[in-house]
Amino acid sequence: MSFSVAVSGASGYAGGEVLRLLASHPGVSIGAITAHSNAGSRLGELQPHLHSLADRELVDTSVEHLAGHDVVFLALPHGASAGIAAQLPEDTLVIDAGADHRLEDPMAWEKFYGSAHAGTWPYGLPELPGHRERLRGARRIAVPGCYPTSSLLALVPGFAAGLLEPDDVVIVSASGTTGAGKSAKVNLLGSEVMGGMNPYGVGGGHRHTPEIEQGLSAAAGGQVTVSFTPTLAPMSRGILTTATAKVRPGTGAAALREAWAAAYSGEPFVHLLPEGQWPHTKAVLGSNHAVLQLAFDGHSGRVIVSCAIDNLNKGTAGGAIQSMNIALGLEETAGLTHQGVAP
Amino acid sequence: MSFSVAVSGASGYAGGEVLRLLASHPGVSIGAITAHSNAGSRLGELQPHLHSLADRELVDTSVEHLAGHDVVFLALPHGASAGIAAQLPEDTLVIDAGADHRLEDPMAWEKFYGSAHAGTWPYGLPELPGHRERLRGARRIAVPGCYPTSSLLALVPGFAAGLLEPDDVVIVSASGTTGAGKSAKVNLLGSEVMGGMNPYGVGGGHRHTPEIEQGLSAAAGGQVTVSFTPTLAPMSRGILTTATAKVRPGTGAAALREAWAAAYSGEPFVHLLPEGQWPHTKAVLGSNHAVLQLAFDGHSGRVIVSCAIDNLNKGTAGGAIQSMNIALGLEETAGLTHQGVAP
Amino acid sequence: MSFSVAVSGASGYAGGEVLRLLASHPGVSIGAITAHSNAGSRLGELQPHLHSLADRELVDTSVEHLAGHDVVFLALPHGASAGIAAQLPEDTLVIDAGADHRLEDPMAWEKFYGSAHAGTWPYGLPELPGHRERLRGARRIAVPGCYPTSSLLALVPGFAAGLLEPDDVVIVSASGTTGAGKSAKVNLLGSEVMGGMNPYGVGGGHRHTPEIEQGLSAAAGGQVTVSFTPTLAPMSRGILTTATAKVRPGTGAAALREAWAAAYSGEPFVHLLPEGQWPHTKAVLGSNHAVLQLAFDGHSGRVIVSCAIDNLNKGTAGGAIQSMNIALGLEETAGLTHQGVAP
Amino acid sequence: MSFSVAVSGASGYAGGEVLRLLASHPGVSIGAITAHSNAGSRLGELQPHLHSLADRELVDTSVEHLAGHDVVFLALPHGASAGIAAQLPEDTLVIDAGADHRLEDPMAWEKFYGSAHAGTWPYGLPELPGHRERLRGARRIAVPGCYPTSSLLALVPGFAAGLLEPDDVVIVSASGTTGAGKSAKVNLLGSEVMGGMNPYGVGGGHRHTPEIEQGLSAAAGGQVTVSFTPTLAPMSRGILTTATAKVRPGTGAAALREAWAAAYSGEPFVHLLPEGQWPHTKAVLGSNHAVLQLAFDGHSGRVIVSCAIDNLNKGTAGGAIQSMNIALGLEETAGLTHQGVAP
Repeated sequence: MSFSVAVSGASGYAGGEVLRLLASHPGVSIGAITAHSNAGSRLGELQPHLHSLADRELVDTSVEHLAGHDVVFLALPHGASAGIAAQLPEDTLVIDAGADHRLEDPMAWEKFYGSAHAGTWPYGLPELPGHRERLRGARRIAVPGCYPTSSLLALVPGFAAGLLEPDDVVIVSASGTTGAGKSAKVNLLGSEVMGGMNPYGVGGGHRHTPEIEQGLSAAAGGQVTVSFTPTLAPMSRGILTTATAKVRPGTGAAALREAWAAAYSGEPFVHLLPEGQWPHTKAVLGSNHAVLQLAFDGHSGRVIVSCAIDNLNKGTAGGAIQSMNIALGLEETAGLTHQGVAP
Repeated sequence: MSFSVAVSGASGYAGGEVLRLLASHPGVSIGAITAHSNAGSRLGELQPHLHSLADRELVDTSVEHLAGHDVVFLALPHGASAGIAAQLPEDTLVIDAGADHRLEDPMAWEKFYGSAHAGTWPYGLPELPGHRERLRGARRIAVPGCYPTSSLLALVPGFAAGLLEPDDVVIVSASGTTGAGKSAKVNLLGSEVMGGMNPYGVGGGHRHTPEIEQGLSAAAGGQVTVSFTPTLAPMSRGILTTATAKVRPGTGAAALREAWAAAYSGEPFVHLLPEGQWPHTKAVLGSNHAVLQLAFDGHSGRVIVSCAIDNLNKGTAGGAIQSMNIALGLEETAGLTHQGVAP
Repeated sequence: MSFSVAVSGASGYAGGEVLRLLASHPGVSIGAITAHSNAGSRLGELQPHLHSLADRELVDTSVEHLAGHDVVFLALPHGASAGIAAQLPEDTLVIDAGADHRLEDPMAWEKFYGSAHAGTWPYGLPELPGHRERLRGARRIAVPGCYPTSSLLALVPGFAAGLLEPDDVVIVSASGTTGAGKSAKVNLLGSEVMGGMNPYGVGGGHRHTPEIEQGLSAAAGGQVTVSFTPTLAPMSRGILTTATAKVRPGTGAAALREAWAAAYSGEPFVHLLPEGQWPHTKAVLGSNHAVLQLAFDGHSGRVIVSCAIDNLNKGTAGGAIQSMNIALGLEETAGLTHQGVAP
Repeated sequence: MSFSVAVSGASGYAGGEVLRLLASHPGVSIGAITAHSNAGSRLGELQPHLHSLADRELVDTSVEHLAGHDVVFLALPHGASAGIAAQLPEDTLVIDAGADHRLEDPMAWEKFYGSAHAGTWPYGLPELPGHRERLRGARRIAVPGCYPTSSLLALVPGFAAGLLEPDDVVIVSASGTTGAGKSAKVNLLGSEVMGGMNPYGVGGGHRHTPEIEQGLSAAAGGQVTVSFTPTLAPMSRGILTTATAKVRPGTGAAALREAWAAAYSGEPFVHLLPEGQWPHTKAVLGSNHAVLQLAFDGHSGRVIVSCAIDNLNKGTAGGAIQSMNIALGLEETAGLTHQGVAP
């Protein structure tokens, strides 16, 4: 038995990665592949790495083309998914790779996105406490942002175990340029980004902050405040997140290690590395894996957690397919057994 | 049924890529993983991207550890494979990723490597005319070099079809740095290679020249002479080969295109791109695919063929496993269905 | 005494590099800085590396703004420079960084650019035989293309010395992405170019071919035919050119070396490296230097010459200022004493 | 009049950058160029970008070769400089690019370096309050580390103005690979670092932490505690530091901006960017400039300061020469007027 899947936004980076993973997924067949301005093109022109799908033609992103599939992936600009989802049958699994349905607080949405809130869907990060259960049988799934994925994987175990102070989390993330999308902008030209780094969206205004705080607060059972700074690194893929939080009095290195180890001991995709080994984004490139390491800095009273993921994979398409597998009752790792591609 | 496979040289780049591909191969089980100075280490320390094998321990590269498997991959320094192969049973499939058994002409070997020739094994480039047949049932296979793989894929169709002059082939290749191996050398430091390019081994003395000439000459049915210049590009993986040859009088663009199209029309891994689309190494990164395009330059009377492969994959480990599949009677594409990882 | 200089196209890469070099040139003062769509902007916004000029405002590219300077640099799209130059006084030194005035053959221009030929100006590559003299006192200068600069530096000594066959030159160049300009295109995004290589404009149709042939033919005293293939490399700056030509019978390695050594023995910016050392583009990054090495490949009867330059510097802005110095009677190296910036 | 300068450690990255800058310094002449294992080599072999010094021969690093110059740069491994300095005349200006003489607290030195403290020399960061005065006429100068340079430039204005809480500074820095030096290590190979990021030396144990705390505490007039995490980015040069500190109650965005603007208003090399423009390491590449921007994150109560420098230039060689200029009574900007080299 095979589930039919439609993929919208197929000319972009998220859509391309969804297709790459679906192409080798044993339980699905790829139906409509849709795009907006690129409708009518051969996929091989736009995604030349997808050899087995090269001759497929992109069709227009419309309800007509998306309907009639068991699963519909939406990789669309902000604000576009709710309207389409409303016109798809309720028993179609709709997976939104965009931001529209991630936030629970309508006011946070409106503050950061300036439009009406589209509602909240089950959040596709199965490793968070209780989330795997919520995803079983779900027919609407919000794919987490890539920065929140790495940030939550980094810090949730400590908050869930009650070991961290909620009021002064500092997170600095470096992302590869695919995180900024595929639209042609001068500041994203290779000439501009190769050989240099720069921050962007600094100062609390970054749209991912409320999503990170939402996840940490849920784990902590109370409001967590985050200072989050994203930076752009000269690499195509990957996020390296450095997350730090004050440790509660009386908590030592062993208790911290134990909390993280316990949180991820059974997880197929999230790995606390052996002591002394630190994450490298290349170790997860092209894969749905996340690698973590932590250190207790007694001097400053902080735990420093480093987490590396592939922003397009575990941070977007891989996480989406992992959630799809859970929702459909497939093996959770189906289609996601890729190792990292290194070096 | 599953074939047991041992992999030597597992701490290097070629060995790592063999393991990465074998880990998701449906027809094999991974037995001994061996190394020289790194014996005793945890694989996850040396190849942190191989998550499913992270806890495997490397053992010493010895006949004792390698024997008893159906297949043995040798990814060893020049001169080391013949001795080991001689001590392995004749019905063990031994696949040599090194150079020792590629050349047919002992004098060419001695000139370029300065040691006695170890003999010639069936050459693992199934897309060459007649080679797929030679690989069926073979129990010794020489894996082609990565430069020769891209060069032969680029030009053999034209020579096999009798369309090219044999006496003035010029090939310039750009390779990612993994082609230079994993040993610590100052000139291969990231600080030295990022942001720049340089040639190396220029002037006919490059060890891959006789291997390229051997393959082209076989296709042409007569001696082909090649000027080959390799350059080092600031990327981890990938080879972009620009190969040009004089076209025989009376041959036009259509005849050239037809020859290449016919040569690769049934091939699962080698793709002549639609006209107007040129190869990009990222389109094949992490995959066993090769992409080609050609243009007839009437002005200079030359055909220019561009070929992109992943040097570690189709250029080494992927080609090796493709040949293994043929030799063992498995599906030729087994374990090699990866798309390229882009962007 | 100081010459006043106006720079047009100041928001682009060529214009930015001209400004960078002029800012530390002891004999000039920078007057109008002009742009088209960016007129009105602060320079520091568009060229954040030009600290000493950060607060200068860009004005519109018009004859009104450009007139009244001793020197005017034009870094404009094809076809735009002739009209402006015609309105500037004859004793203003006009330096065209674009292609309009490079070619001597109107038919070649029309074939490759599809418009009427604007005329031929003295060619700003002082190292070519006889060119330094033509630049003295010139008031119109055509800046060579970056590929022709590296190609001509590579091969002219051999043709000028009568050592090379004219009918089968093969050149393959790898260029950094700034060579493709600063306009926002998806295929030039960092995500697309980092970690990969691709050819472009293959097959004799590349616009730089007639310019390369023009220079080589002049040196050879007869028509030279070139097959030229440019490729795009994952680096911001730099061109590595691999140029090969058949060597005339009876010519050996020593005669070849002698010809190149003699040609460049007195040159301040072009360096034949000691035997055994090969060019690296990082060794010339940010500088007006060119480095070369050559090898005689007796096997194929070809000389292989490798030449590295910075495409924006010696290939554009540096070469332009070197020519300006000569035209104005300044020290030829004035403002160009930068070493390469490595690593 | 010209000061004679000797440079030790000339085959490394710091020594190479010192030479690059000195080669165009109007007030100095370069005397002995020394190395350890590379003594006897031609400089052009080891530093191929230093064209004007290519034919200079490296001599052994010994007091004999270093003595007799007005200035001696020491770019040596930890622990090597004190012994040499002791044998040089007291009126020789000795500039130590290593760590030996940076820390004031012998216990901090011993804890992090495990050897006896060599003493404290005037600290070569002229932009710190009061430091320019201490450098005038100095004959021993300790060059700051590159991470401390960027961290102190980022936060000292806020502490000096009494606007920041001392007890919870969090700094995350990304450095180019030259920061890790030129010794051949597998983890620094281009194949390993291109396309990925990783942290290192995490958890309070990093040797630069006490140096950062020393500078911040001096500015604050009391102990400042820092959590510092360095990461390695895929670029040759550059440091991007993200530094955050809690803001004292009652302090707003305007007061913060004013403090930083005032601190750097007269500085030739340190630039607070216009609001809305964020630092990019490429804007300072190859130059002695530092660029900063800050944002007040009212949500978390933190100021976030971003600072970009070139680790080899302002972070090492440029800062050293700036301090030399002050010590010798030269123009402070002499030999340091380079713009950034971008893109």
